[in-house]
Amino acid sequence: MDDAAFLSTVERLRADVERRLAELLPAEGQSPTGLTGAARYALLSPGKRFRPILTLLTAIDFGAAEGAALDAACAYEMVHTASLILDDLPSMDDANLRRGLATTHRAFDEANAILAAVALLNRAYGVIADDAGLAESARVELVAQLSETIGFRGLTAGQARDLDRRGRTLSNDEIDLVNHQKTGVLLVAAAMAGGLVAGVTGVRLAAVGESARRLGLAFQIRDDLLDVTGAGDKDAGKDAGMPTLVTTLGEAGAREAMLGYLDAAREALQRAGGGMSAWRYAAGFFGAPKVVA
Amino acid sequence: MDDAAFLSTVERLRADVERRLAELLPAEGQSPTGLTGAARYALLSPGKRFRPILTLLTAIDFGAAEGAALDAACAYEMVHTASLILDDLPSMDDANLRRGLATTHRAFDEANAILAAVALLNRAYGVIADDAGLAESARVELVAQLSETIGFRGLTAGQARDLDRRGRTLSNDEIDLVNHQKTGVLLVAAAMAGGLVAGVTGVRLAAVGESARRLGLAFQIRDDLLDVTGAGDKDAGKDAGMPTLVTTLGEAGAREAMLGYLDAAREALQRAGGGMSAWRYAAGFFGAPKVVA
Repeated sequence: MDDAAFLSTVERLRADVERRLAELLPAEGQSPTGLTGAARYALLSPGKRFRPILTLLTAIDFGAAEGAALDAACAYEMVHTASLILDDLPSMDDANLRRGLATTHRAFDEANAILAAVALLNRAYGVIADDAGLAESARVELVAQLSETIGFRGLTAGQARDLDRRGRTLSNDEIDLVNHQKTGVLLVAAAMAGGLVAGVTGVRLAAVGESARRLGLAFQIRDDLLDVTGAGDKDAGKDAGMPTLVTTLGEAGAREAMLGYLDAAREALQRAGGGMSAWRYAAGFFGAPKVVA
Repeated sequence: MDDAAFLSTVERLRADVERRLAELLPAEGQSPTGLTGAARYALLSPGKRFRPILTLLTAIDFGAAEGAALDAACAYEMVHTASLILDDLPSMDDANLRRGLATTHRAFDEANAILAAVALLNRAYGVIADDAGLAESARVELVAQLSETIGFRGLTAGQARDLDRRGRTLSNDEIDLVNHQKTGVLLVAAAMAGGLVAGVTGVRLAAVGESARRLGLAFQIRDDLLDVTGAGDKDAGKDAGMPTLVTTLGEAGAREAMLGYLDAAREALQRAGGGMSAWRYAAGFFGAPKVVA
Protein backbone atom coordinates (compact mmCIF):
# COMPACT_ATOMS: atom_id res chain seq x y z
CA MET A 1 0.00 0.00 0.00
CA ASP A 2 1.48 3.37 -0.98
CA ASP A 3 1.65 6.25 1.49
CA ALA A 4 -1.44 8.03 0.16
CA ALA A 5 -3.57 4.89 0.34
CA PHE A 6 -2.25 4.13 3.83
CA LEU A 7 -3.02 7.65 5.01
CA SER A 8 -6.51 7.37 3.63
CA THR A 9 -7.04 4.05 5.46
CA VAL A 10 -5.94 5.68 8.70
CA GLU A 11 -8.28 8.61 8.11
CA ARG A 12 -11.18 6.25 7.50
CA LEU A 13 -10.45 4.39 10.75
CA ARG A 14 -10.24 7.69 12.59
CA ALA A 15 -13.67 8.66 11.25
CA ASP A 16 -15.05 5.28 12.37
CA VAL A 17 -13.71 5.90 15.86
CA GLU A 18 -15.13 9.43 16.07
CA ARG A 19 -18.56 8.27 14.95
CA ARG A 20 -18.62 5.33 17.34
CA LEU A 21 -17.37 7.36 20.31
CA ALA A 22 -20.30 9.75 19.88
CA GLU A 23 -22.73 6.80 19.76
CA LEU A 24 -21.30 5.27 22.92
CA LEU A 25 -21.82 8.40 25.04
CA PRO A 26 -25.06 9.81 26.44
CA ALA A 27 -26.84 12.07 23.92
CA GLU A 28 -26.18 15.80 24.05
CA GLY A 29 -28.36 17.43 26.68
CA GLN A 30 -28.98 14.25 28.70
CA SER A 31 -29.46 15.08 32.36
CA PRO A 32 -27.37 15.79 34.42
CA THR A 33 -26.07 18.12 31.72
CA GLY A 34 -22.89 19.20 33.53
CA LEU A 35 -21.67 15.61 33.74
CA THR A 36 -22.68 14.47 30.27
CA GLY A 37 -21.56 17.78 28.75
CA ALA A 38 -18.11 17.54 30.35
CA ALA A 39 -17.70 13.93 29.19
CA ARG A 40 -18.78 14.75 25.63
CA TYR A 41 -16.59 17.85 25.55
CA ALA A 42 -13.51 15.92 26.65
CA LEU A 43 -14.05 12.81 24.54
CA LEU A 44 -15.43 14.33 21.34
CA SER A 45 -13.03 17.28 21.00
CA PRO A 46 -10.69 16.72 18.04
CA GLY A 47 -7.80 14.37 18.79
CA LYS A 48 -5.33 12.09 17.03
CA ARG A 49 -7.19 8.99 18.27
CA PHE A 50 -3.78 7.35 18.35
CA ARG A 51 -4.66 4.56 20.78
CA PRO A 52 -7.84 3.35 19.08
CA ILE A 53 -6.16 3.48 15.67
CA LEU A 54 -3.32 1.43 17.12
CA THR A 55 -5.88 -1.12 18.33
CA LEU A 56 -7.65 -1.22 14.97
CA LEU A 57 -4.47 -1.48 12.87
CA THR A 58 -3.06 -4.20 15.12
CA ALA A 59 -6.28 -6.18 14.82
CA ILE A 60 -6.14 -5.81 11.02
CA ASP A 61 -2.41 -6.70 11.00
CA PHE A 62 -3.29 -10.04 12.55
CA GLY A 63 -6.28 -10.85 10.39
CA ALA A 64 -9.34 -9.53 12.22
CA ALA A 65 -12.25 -8.07 10.27
CA GLU A 66 -12.00 -4.30 10.10
CA GLY A 67 -14.82 -3.46 12.51
CA ALA A 68 -14.17 -6.27 15.00
CA ALA A 69 -12.05 -4.21 17.38
CA LEU A 70 -13.95 -0.91 17.06
CA ASP A 71 -15.70 -0.92 20.44
CA ALA A 72 -12.60 -2.14 22.28
CA ALA A 73 -10.63 0.60 20.50
CA CYS A 74 -13.13 3.20 21.68
CA ALA A 75 -12.81 1.93 25.26
CA TYR A 76 -9.07 2.75 25.23
CA GLU A 77 -9.77 6.26 23.93
CA MET A 78 -12.22 6.76 26.80
CA VAL A 79 -9.58 5.73 29.30
CA HIS A 80 -7.00 7.98 27.64
CA THR A 81 -9.39 10.95 27.75
CA ALA A 82 -10.21 10.27 31.40
CA SER A 83 -6.50 10.28 32.25
CA LEU A 84 -6.03 13.62 30.48
CA ILE A 85 -8.94 15.19 32.40
CA LEU A 86 -7.38 14.02 35.67
CA ASP A 87 -3.83 15.08 34.74
CA ASP A 88 -5.04 18.63 34.01
CA LEU A 89 -6.84 19.12 37.34
CA PRO A 90 -5.81 21.95 39.69
CA SER A 91 -4.42 19.43 42.19
CA MET A 92 -2.23 17.87 39.47
CA ASP A 93 -0.89 19.85 36.46
CA ASP A 94 -3.35 22.73 36.94
CA ALA A 95 -3.55 23.19 33.17
CA ASN A 96 -5.82 25.72 31.49
CA LEU A 97 -5.40 24.52 27.92
CA ARG A 98 -5.34 21.12 26.25
CA ARG A 99 -4.97 20.82 22.47
CA GLY A 100 -5.72 24.55 22.20
CA LEU A 101 -9.05 24.28 24.05
CA ALA A 102 -9.97 25.02 27.64
CA THR A 103 -9.33 21.98 29.83
CA THR A 104 -12.47 20.21 31.00
CA HIS A 105 -12.44 21.64 34.52
CA ARG A 106 -12.07 25.13 33.02
CA ALA A 107 -14.82 24.66 30.44
CA PHE A 108 -17.15 23.13 33.07
CA ASP A 109 -16.12 22.94 36.71
CA GLU A 110 -13.82 20.78 38.76
CA ALA A 111 -16.49 18.50 40.24
CA ASN A 112 -18.04 17.73 36.86
CA ALA A 113 -14.58 17.20 35.34
CA ILE A 114 -13.68 14.63 38.00
CA LEU A 115 -17.05 12.89 37.69
CA ALA A 116 -16.79 12.89 33.89
CA ALA A 117 -13.36 11.22 34.11
CA VAL A 118 -14.76 8.55 36.42
CA ALA A 119 -17.83 8.06 34.22
CA LEU A 120 -15.67 7.69 31.09
CA LEU A 121 -13.40 5.13 32.74
CA ASN A 122 -16.42 3.16 33.78
CA ARG A 123 -18.06 3.45 30.41
CA ALA A 124 -14.94 1.83 28.94
CA TYR A 125 -15.58 -1.28 31.03
CA GLY A 126 -19.24 -1.32 30.04
CA VAL A 127 -18.39 -1.02 26.36
CA ILE A 128 -16.11 -4.03 26.59
CA ALA A 129 -18.58 -6.08 28.65
CA ASP A 130 -21.38 -5.32 26.17
CA ASP A 131 -19.33 -6.10 23.04
CA ALA A 132 -21.41 -8.99 21.71
CA GLY A 133 -18.95 -9.49 18.83
CA LEU A 134 -16.33 -10.82 21.25
CA ALA A 135 -16.36 -14.14 23.10
CA GLU A 136 -17.03 -13.82 26.83
CA SER A 137 -13.53 -15.11 27.53
CA ALA A 138 -12.05 -12.28 25.43
CA ARG A 139 -14.16 -9.72 27.24
CA VAL A 140 -13.05 -11.03 30.64
CA GLU A 141 -9.42 -10.89 29.51
CA LEU A 142 -9.80 -7.33 28.20
CA VAL A 143 -11.40 -6.20 31.46
CA ALA A 144 -8.65 -7.81 33.54
CA GLN A 145 -6.01 -6.22 31.33
CA LEU A 146 -7.66 -2.79 31.48
CA SER A 147 -7.82 -2.96 35.26
CA GLU A 148 -4.08 -3.71 35.40
CA THR A 149 -3.49 -0.87 32.95
CA ILE A 150 -5.24 1.75 35.05
CA GLY A 151 -4.51 0.42 38.52
CA PHE A 152 -1.81 0.43 41.16
CA ARG A 153 0.91 -0.57 38.68
CA GLY A 154 -0.53 1.39 35.76
CA LEU A 155 -1.78 4.85 34.85
CA THR A 156 -2.75 5.96 38.35
CA ALA A 157 0.63 4.85 39.70
CA GLY A 158 2.38 6.63 36.82
CA GLN A 159 0.53 9.86 37.53
CA ALA A 160 1.28 9.60 41.26
CA ARG A 161 4.97 9.03 40.49
CA ASP A 162 4.95 11.93 38.03
CA LEU A 163 3.66 14.27 40.75
CA ASP A 164 6.14 12.88 43.29
CA ARG A 165 9.20 13.38 41.10
CA ARG A 166 8.93 17.15 40.71
CA GLY A 167 12.13 18.76 41.84
CA ARG A 168 13.80 15.40 42.56
CA THR A 169 16.64 13.68 40.72
CA LEU A 170 15.69 10.30 39.28
CA SER A 171 17.80 7.59 37.71
CA ASN A 172 17.22 6.73 34.05
CA ASP A 173 15.49 3.52 35.17
CA GLU A 174 13.14 5.47 37.41
CA ILE A 175 12.37 7.90 34.58
CA ASP A 176 11.62 4.95 32.29
CA LEU A 177 9.25 3.52 34.91
CA VAL A 178 7.33 6.80 35.22
CA ASN A 179 7.15 7.13 31.44
CA HIS A 180 6.05 3.55 31.02
CA GLN A 181 3.31 3.72 33.66
CA LYS A 182 2.12 7.19 32.68
CA THR A 183 1.73 6.56 28.95
CA GLY A 184 3.28 3.26 27.90
CA VAL A 185 0.94 0.90 29.70
CA LEU A 186 -2.08 2.22 27.83
CA LEU A 187 -0.35 1.88 24.46
CA VAL A 188 0.61 -1.69 25.36
CA ALA A 189 -2.96 -2.47 26.40
CA ALA A 190 -4.42 -0.84 23.26
CA ALA A 191 -2.12 -2.79 20.94
CA MET A 192 -2.61 -6.07 22.81
CA ALA A 193 -6.38 -5.56 22.67
CA GLY A 194 -6.11 -5.46 18.88
CA GLY A 195 -4.07 -8.66 18.91
CA LEU A 196 -6.45 -10.32 21.34
CA VAL A 197 -9.48 -9.52 19.20
CA ALA A 198 -7.62 -11.08 16.25
CA GLY A 199 -6.99 -14.25 18.25
CA VAL A 200 -3.26 -13.71 18.87
CA THR A 201 -2.05 -15.46 22.04
CA GLY A 202 1.04 -16.39 24.05
CA VAL A 203 4.50 -15.19 22.98
CA ARG A 204 3.15 -13.55 19.85
CA LEU A 205 0.72 -11.47 21.90
CA ALA A 206 3.53 -10.63 24.30
CA ALA A 207 5.63 -9.44 21.34
CA VAL A 208 2.79 -7.15 20.25
CA GLY A 209 2.76 -5.70 23.74
CA GLU A 210 6.55 -5.40 23.81
CA SER A 211 6.48 -3.49 20.53
CA ALA A 212 3.97 -1.03 21.92
CA ARG A 213 5.98 -0.65 25.12
CA ARG A 214 8.99 0.45 23.08
CA LEU A 215 6.79 2.79 21.06
CA GLY A 216 5.56 4.35 24.29
CA LEU A 217 9.10 5.04 25.47
CA ALA A 218 9.96 6.55 22.06
CA PHE A 219 6.88 8.80 22.21
CA GLN A 220 7.74 9.97 25.69
CA ILE A 221 11.21 11.08 24.61
CA ARG A 222 9.67 12.75 21.56
CA ASP A 223 7.35 14.70 23.87
CA ASP A 224 10.23 15.67 26.13
CA LEU A 225 12.26 16.85 23.11
CA LEU A 226 9.30 18.85 21.79
CA ASP A 227 8.87 20.36 25.23
CA VAL A 228 12.49 21.55 25.23
CA THR A 229 12.37 22.92 21.68
CA GLY A 230 8.87 24.38 22.03
CA ALA A 231 7.70 22.76 18.80
CA GLY A 232 4.97 20.71 20.44
CA ASP A 233 1.36 21.50 21.24
CA LYS A 234 2.03 21.85 24.96
CA ASP A 235 3.22 25.08 26.54
CA ALA A 236 6.99 25.02 25.99
CA GLY A 237 8.95 24.72 29.20
CA LYS A 238 5.85 23.66 31.15
CA ASP A 239 7.78 20.66 32.48
CA ALA A 240 10.87 22.75 33.28
CA GLY A 241 12.60 21.38 36.36
CA MET A 242 11.19 17.89 35.89
CA PRO A 243 13.87 15.31 35.20
CA THR A 244 13.53 13.61 31.79
CA LEU A 245 15.86 11.62 29.57
CA VAL A 246 16.58 14.89 27.75
CA THR A 247 18.01 16.38 30.94
CA THR A 248 20.06 13.29 31.78
CA LEU A 249 21.23 12.29 28.26
CA GLY A 250 21.18 15.65 26.49
CA GLU A 251 19.22 16.33 23.30
CA ALA A 252 21.42 14.24 20.98
CA GLY A 253 21.54 11.31 23.38
CA ALA A 254 17.80 11.43 23.90
CA ARG A 255 17.20 11.49 20.14
CA GLU A 256 19.42 8.44 19.73
CA ALA A 257 17.56 6.60 22.51
CA MET A 258 14.25 7.51 20.87
CA LEU A 259 15.25 6.06 17.50
CA GLY A 260 16.64 2.98 19.26
CA TYR A 261 13.26 2.38 20.90
CA LEU A 262 11.53 2.86 17.55
CA ASP A 263 13.77 0.22 15.95
CA ALA A 264 13.20 -2.16 18.85
CA ALA A 265 9.45 -1.67 18.44
CA ARG A 266 9.68 -2.68 14.79
CA GLU A 267 11.73 -5.78 15.59
CA ALA A 268 9.29 -6.90 18.29
CA LEU A 269 6.31 -6.53 15.97
CA GLN A 270 8.16 -8.48 13.25
CA ARG A 271 8.68 -11.29 15.78
CA ALA A 272 4.90 -11.41 16.34
CA GLY A 273 4.61 -12.34 12.68
CA GLY A 274 1.64 -10.27 11.50
CA GLY A 275 1.37 -7.16 9.35
CA MET A 276 3.35 -4.02 10.19
CA SER A 277 0.78 -1.29 9.64
CA ALA A 278 0.50 -0.42 13.34
CA TRP A 279 4.23 0.28 13.45
CA ARG A 280 4.12 2.13 10.16
CA TYR A 281 1.40 4.39 11.55
CA ALA A 282 3.34 5.09 14.75
CA ALA A 283 6.64 5.66 12.94
CA GLY A 284 4.97 8.38 10.87
CA PHE A 285 4.92 10.59 13.99
CA PHE A 286 8.73 10.49 14.13
CA GLY A 287 9.40 11.52 10.53
CA ALA A 288 11.16 8.14 10.24
CA PRO A 289 11.63 6.49 6.85
CA LYS A 290 8.33 4.90 5.91
CA VAL A 291 8.16 1.11 5.72
CA VAL A 292 6.04 -0.64 3.17
CA ALA A 293 3.62 -2.85 5.10
CA MET B 1 -31.66 -18.45 63.88
CA ASP B 2 -31.99 -16.29 67.01
CA ASP B 3 -30.75 -12.71 67.11
CA ALA B 4 -27.45 -13.51 68.83
CA ALA B 5 -26.57 -16.24 66.34
CA PHE B 6 -27.55 -13.99 63.44
CA LEU B 7 -25.42 -11.15 64.78
CA SER B 8 -22.49 -13.50 65.13
CA THR B 9 -22.92 -14.69 61.52
CA VAL B 10 -22.89 -11.07 60.35
CA GLU B 11 -19.77 -10.36 62.40
CA ARG B 12 -18.02 -13.36 60.87
CA LEU B 13 -18.90 -12.20 57.35
CA ARG B 14 -17.65 -8.71 58.17
CA ALA B 15 -14.34 -10.18 59.34
CA ASP B 16 -14.10 -12.19 56.09
CA VAL B 17 -14.63 -9.01 54.10
CA GLU B 18 -12.04 -7.04 56.07
CA ARG B 19 -9.43 -9.75 55.65
CA ARG B 20 -10.09 -10.16 51.94
CA LEU B 21 -10.10 -6.42 51.25
CA ALA B 22 -6.61 -6.16 52.71
CA GLU B 23 -5.43 -9.06 50.53
CA LEU B 24 -6.85 -7.49 47.37
CA LEU B 25 -4.96 -4.21 47.81
CA PRO B 26 -1.25 -3.50 47.24
CA ALA B 27 0.82 -4.30 50.33
CA GLU B 28 1.56 -1.51 52.78
CA GLY B 29 4.51 0.55 51.60
CA GLN B 30 4.27 -0.47 47.94
CA SER B 31 5.49 2.34 45.70
CA PRO B 32 4.10 4.89 44.93
CA THR B 33 3.34 5.13 48.65
CA GLY B 34 1.05 8.17 48.46
CA LEU B 35 -1.31 6.35 46.12
CA THR B 36 -1.28 2.95 47.79
CA GLY B 37 -1.34 4.54 51.25
CA ALA B 38 -4.38 6.66 50.40
CA ALA B 39 -6.21 3.66 48.94
CA ARG B 40 -5.43 1.48 51.96
CA TYR B 41 -6.36 4.27 54.38
CA ALA B 42 -9.72 4.81 52.72
CA LEU B 43 -10.63 1.15 52.16
CA LEU B 44 -9.27 -0.44 55.33
CA SER B 45 -10.47 2.14 57.86
CA PRO B 46 -13.26 0.67 60.01
CA GLY B 47 -16.67 0.64 58.32
CA LYS B 48 -20.00 -1.13 58.49
CA ARG B 49 -19.22 -3.04 55.28
CA PHE B 50 -22.93 -2.86 54.62
CA ARG B 51 -22.78 -3.43 50.85
CA PRO B 52 -20.50 -6.50 50.86
CA ILE B 53 -22.48 -8.05 53.72
CA LEU B 54 -25.66 -7.44 51.69
CA THR B 55 -24.02 -9.25 48.76
CA LEU B 56 -22.90 -12.16 50.94
CA LEU B 57 -26.23 -12.59 52.77
CA THR B 58 -28.19 -12.39 49.52
CA ALA B 59 -25.95 -15.06 47.99
CA ILE B 60 -26.48 -17.26 51.05
CA ASP B 61 -30.24 -16.53 51.03
CA PHE B 62 -30.41 -18.04 47.55
CA GLY B 63 -28.25 -21.08 48.20
CA ALA B 64 -24.68 -20.09 47.27
CA ALA B 65 -21.74 -21.44 49.26
CA GLU B 66 -20.65 -18.96 51.90
CA GLY B 67 -17.42 -17.83 50.27
CA ALA B 68 -18.67 -17.82 46.67
CA ALA B 69 -19.55 -14.13 46.57
CA LEU B 70 -16.67 -12.83 48.71
CA ASP B 71 -14.59 -11.23 45.94
CA ALA B 72 -17.61 -9.73 44.21
CA ALA B 73 -18.71 -8.39 47.61
CA CYS B 74 -15.31 -6.77 48.10
CA ALA B 75 -15.56 -5.14 44.66
CA TYR B 76 -18.72 -3.31 45.75
CA GLU B 77 -17.02 -2.08 48.91
CA MET B 78 -14.16 -0.72 46.78
CA VAL B 79 -16.62 1.18 44.62
CA HIS B 80 -18.44 2.50 47.70
CA THR B 81 -15.16 3.69 49.22
CA ALA B 82 -14.12 5.35 45.96
CA SER B 83 -17.42 7.22 45.86
CA LEU B 84 -16.92 8.45 49.44
CA ILE B 85 -13.42 9.72 48.63
CA LEU B 86 -14.80 11.65 45.67
CA ASP B 87 -17.84 13.01 47.54
CA ASP B 88 -15.57 14.44 50.24
CA LEU B 89 -13.25 16.33 47.84
CA PRO B 90 -12.86 20.11 48.11
CA SER B 91 -14.70 20.58 44.81
CA MET B 92 -17.65 18.53 46.10
CA ASP B 93 -18.63 18.34 49.80
CA ASP B 94 -15.27 19.69 51.03
CA ALA B 95 -15.44 17.44 54.09
CA ASN B 96 -12.69 17.20 56.68
CA LEU B 97 -13.99 14.22 58.59
CA ARG B 98 -15.49 10.88 57.58
CA ARG B 99 -16.47 8.34 60.24
CA GLY B 100 -14.48 10.38 62.77
CA LEU B 101 -11.24 10.21 60.77
CA ALA B 102 -9.63 12.75 58.48
CA THR B 103 -11.00 12.40 54.93
CA THR B 104 -8.56 10.86 52.46
CA HIS B 105 -7.57 14.15 50.81
CA ARG B 106 -6.89 15.61 54.27
CA ALA B 107 -4.88 12.63 55.48
CA PHE B 108 -2.89 12.51 52.20
CA ASP B 109 -3.40 15.14 49.53
CA GLU B 110 -6.01 15.88 46.92
CA ALA B 111 -4.15 14.39 43.95
CA ASN B 112 -3.48 11.10 45.72
CA ALA B 113 -7.06 10.98 46.98
CA ILE B 114 -8.44 11.36 43.45
CA LEU B 115 -6.00 8.79 42.06
CA ALA B 116 -6.77 6.38 44.91
CA ALA B 117 -10.49 6.64 44.14
CA VAL B 118 -9.82 5.89 40.47
CA ALA B 119 -7.48 3.02 41.35
CA LEU B 120 -10.04 1.48 43.74
CA LEU B 121 -12.81 1.68 41.14
CA ASN B 122 -10.58 -0.02 38.65
CA ARG B 123 -9.45 -2.63 41.12
CA ALA B 124 -13.11 -3.56 41.57
CA TYR B 125 -13.32 -4.48 37.89
CA GLY B 126 -10.11 -6.46 38.08
CA VAL B 127 -11.30 -8.38 41.13
CA ILE B 128 -14.47 -9.42 39.28
CA ALA B 129 -12.61 -10.31 36.08
CA ASP B 130 -10.10 -12.42 38.04
CA ASP B 131 -12.72 -14.28 40.11
CA ALA B 132 -12.03 -17.80 38.89
CA GLY B 133 -14.87 -19.14 41.05
CA LEU B 134 -17.43 -17.50 38.75
CA ALA B 135 -18.33 -18.50 35.20
CA GLU B 136 -17.08 -16.08 32.56
CA SER B 137 -20.67 -15.22 31.68
CA ALA B 138 -21.32 -14.19 35.30
CA ARG B 139 -18.19 -12.06 35.34
CA VAL B 140 -19.21 -10.29 32.13
CA GLU B 141 -22.67 -9.66 33.56
CA LEU B 142 -21.24 -8.29 36.83
CA VAL B 143 -18.88 -5.96 34.92
CA ALA B 144 -21.71 -4.69 32.72
CA GLN B 145 -23.90 -4.15 35.77
CA LEU B 146 -21.12 -2.37 37.68
CA SER B 147 -20.50 -0.04 34.75
CA GLU B 148 -24.20 0.88 34.67
CA THR B 149 -24.09 1.36 38.44
CA ILE B 150 -21.25 3.87 38.37
CA GLY B 151 -21.90 5.54 35.04
CA PHE B 152 -24.02 8.23 33.45
CA ARG B 153 -27.25 6.92 35.02
CA GLY B 154 -25.64 5.77 38.26
CA LEU B 155 -23.36 7.03 41.04
CA THR B 156 -21.57 9.71 39.03
CA ALA B 157 -24.91 11.07 37.78
CA GLY B 158 -26.31 10.99 41.32
CA GLN B 159 -23.34 12.92 42.66
CA ALA B 160 -23.60 15.49 39.83
CA ARG B 161 -27.33 15.92 40.55
CA ASP B 162 -26.62 16.21 44.25
CA LEU B 163 -24.21 19.09 43.61
CA ASP B 164 -26.64 20.73 41.16
CA ARG B 165 -29.60 20.71 43.53
CA ARG B 166 -28.09 22.84 46.26
CA GLY B 167 -30.28 25.82 46.93
CA ARG B 168 -32.92 24.65 44.42
CA THR B 169 -36.42 23.31 45.06
CA LEU B 170 -36.95 19.76 43.77
CA SER B 171 -40.09 17.71 43.46
CA ASN B 172 -40.37 14.52 45.52
CA ASP B 173 -39.77 12.51 42.32
CA GLU B 174 -36.56 14.43 41.63
CA ILE B 175 -35.39 13.92 45.22
CA ASP B 176 -36.10 10.18 44.87
CA LEU B 177 -34.02 10.11 41.65
CA VAL B 178 -31.03 11.80 43.31
CA ASN B 179 -31.27 9.48 46.31
CA HIS B 180 -31.59 6.43 44.12
CA GLN B 181 -28.63 7.30 41.89
CA LYS B 182 -26.45 8.53 44.73
CA THR B 183 -26.83 5.53 47.01
CA GLY B 184 -29.60 3.21 45.85
CA VAL B 185 -28.00 1.98 42.63
CA LEU B 186 -25.01 0.55 44.46
CA LEU B 187 -27.20 -1.26 46.99
CA VAL B 188 -29.23 -2.69 44.10
CA ALA B 189 -26.07 -3.81 42.33
CA ALA B 190 -24.57 -5.31 45.50
CA ALA B 191 -27.73 -7.30 46.27
CA MET B 192 -28.19 -8.42 42.66
CA ALA B 193 -24.56 -9.54 42.57
CA GLY B 194 -25.28 -11.86 45.46
CA GLY B 195 -28.31 -13.23 43.63
CA LEU B 196 -26.37 -13.58 40.42
CA VAL B 197 -23.58 -15.53 42.10
CA ALA B 198 -26.27 -17.85 43.53
CA GLY B 199 -27.70 -18.40 40.05
CA VAL B 200 -30.87 -16.33 40.47
CA THR B 201 -32.16 -14.96 37.14
CA GLY B 202 -35.07 -13.17 35.47
CA VAL B 203 -37.98 -11.84 37.53
CA ARG B 204 -36.60 -13.30 40.75
CA LEU B 205 -33.32 -11.42 40.26
CA ALA B 206 -35.28 -8.27 39.42
CA ALA B 207 -37.22 -8.68 42.69
CA VAL B 208 -33.92 -8.91 44.62
CA GLY B 209 -32.89 -5.64 42.98
CA GLU B 210 -36.26 -4.05 43.66
CA SER B 211 -35.99 -4.98 47.33
CA ALA B 212 -32.58 -3.31 47.56
CA ARG B 213 -33.85 -0.24 45.71
CA ARG B 214 -36.54 0.22 48.37
CA LEU B 215 -33.95 -0.33 51.11
CA GLY B 216 -31.80 2.39 49.55
CA LEU B 217 -34.66 4.89 49.63
CA ALA B 218 -35.39 3.96 53.25
CA PHE B 219 -31.72 4.45 54.21
CA GLN B 220 -31.61 7.82 52.50
CA ILE B 221 -34.59 9.08 54.51
CA ARG B 222 -32.99 7.65 57.66
CA ASP B 223 -29.82 9.64 56.89
CA ASP B 224 -31.83 12.78 56.26
CA LEU B 225 -33.71 12.30 59.55
CA LEU B 226 -30.45 11.73 61.43
CA ASP B 227 -29.02 14.85 59.82
CA VAL B 228 -31.97 16.92 61.08
CA THR B 229 -31.87 15.45 64.60
CA GLY B 230 -28.09 15.41 64.83
CA ALA B 231 -28.04 11.80 65.97
CA GLY B 232 -26.00 10.57 62.99
CA ASP B 233 -22.28 10.34 62.48
CA LYS B 234 -22.24 13.25 60.03
CA ASP B 235 -21.98 16.88 61.14
CA ALA B 236 -25.57 17.81 62.03
CA GLY B 237 -27.05 20.42 59.74
CA LYS B 238 -24.31 19.88 57.14
CA ASP B 239 -26.99 19.42 54.49
CA ALA B 240 -28.98 22.44 55.69
CA GLY B 241 -30.63 24.17 52.76
CA MET B 242 -30.61 21.02 50.62
CA PRO B 243 -34.09 19.78 49.82
CA THR B 244 -34.85 16.30 51.17
CA LEU B 245 -38.02 14.34 51.83
CA VAL B 246 -37.77 15.57 55.42
CA THR B 247 -38.11 19.18 54.25
CA THR B 248 -40.98 18.40 51.89
CA LEU B 249 -42.91 15.84 54.00
CA GLY B 250 -41.92 16.89 57.51
CA GLU B 251 -40.34 14.55 60.06
CA ALA B 252 -43.45 12.44 60.70
CA GLY B 253 -44.24 12.10 57.01
CA ALA B 254 -40.65 11.18 56.19
CA ARG B 255 -40.61 8.55 58.93
CA GLU B 256 -43.80 7.05 57.54
CA ALA B 257 -42.34 6.98 54.01
CA MET B 258 -39.19 5.33 55.37
CA LEU B 259 -41.13 2.52 57.07
CA GLY B 260 -43.23 2.12 53.93
CA TYR B 261 -40.09 1.59 51.86
CA LEU B 262 -38.79 -0.90 54.42
CA ASP B 263 -42.04 -2.91 54.17
CA ALA B 264 -41.94 -2.78 50.38
CA ALA B 265 -38.35 -4.06 50.48
CA ARG B 266 -39.44 -7.05 52.55
CA GLU B 267 -42.32 -7.84 50.22
CA ALA B 268 -40.11 -7.69 47.14
CA LEU B 269 -37.55 -10.05 48.68
CA GLN B 270 -40.33 -12.45 49.69
CA ARG B 271 -41.46 -12.48 46.04
CA ALA B 272 -37.94 -13.56 45.02
CA GLY B 273 -38.50 -16.68 47.09
CA GLY B 274 -35.19 -17.15 48.89
CA GLY B 275 -34.14 -16.57 52.49
CA MET B 276 -34.72 -13.21 54.19
CA SER B 277 -31.45 -12.69 56.04
CA ALA B 278 -30.36 -9.77 53.80
CA TRP B 279 -33.55 -7.90 54.71
CA ARG B 280 -33.25 -8.89 58.37
CA TYR B 281 -29.74 -7.44 58.43
CA ALA B 282 -30.84 -4.17 56.79
CA ALA B 283 -33.93 -3.81 58.96
CA GLY B 284 -31.70 -3.96 62.04
CA PHE B 285 -30.43 -0.47 61.20
CA PHE B 286 -33.95 0.91 61.56
CA GLY B 287 -34.74 -0.57 64.96
CA ALA B 288 -37.60 -2.33 63.18
CA PRO B 289 -39.14 -5.50 64.61
CA LYS B 290 -36.77 -8.36 63.82
CA VAL B 291 -37.94 -11.05 61.45
CA VAL B 292 -37.02 -14.66 61.91
CA ALA B 293 -35.28 -15.67 58.71
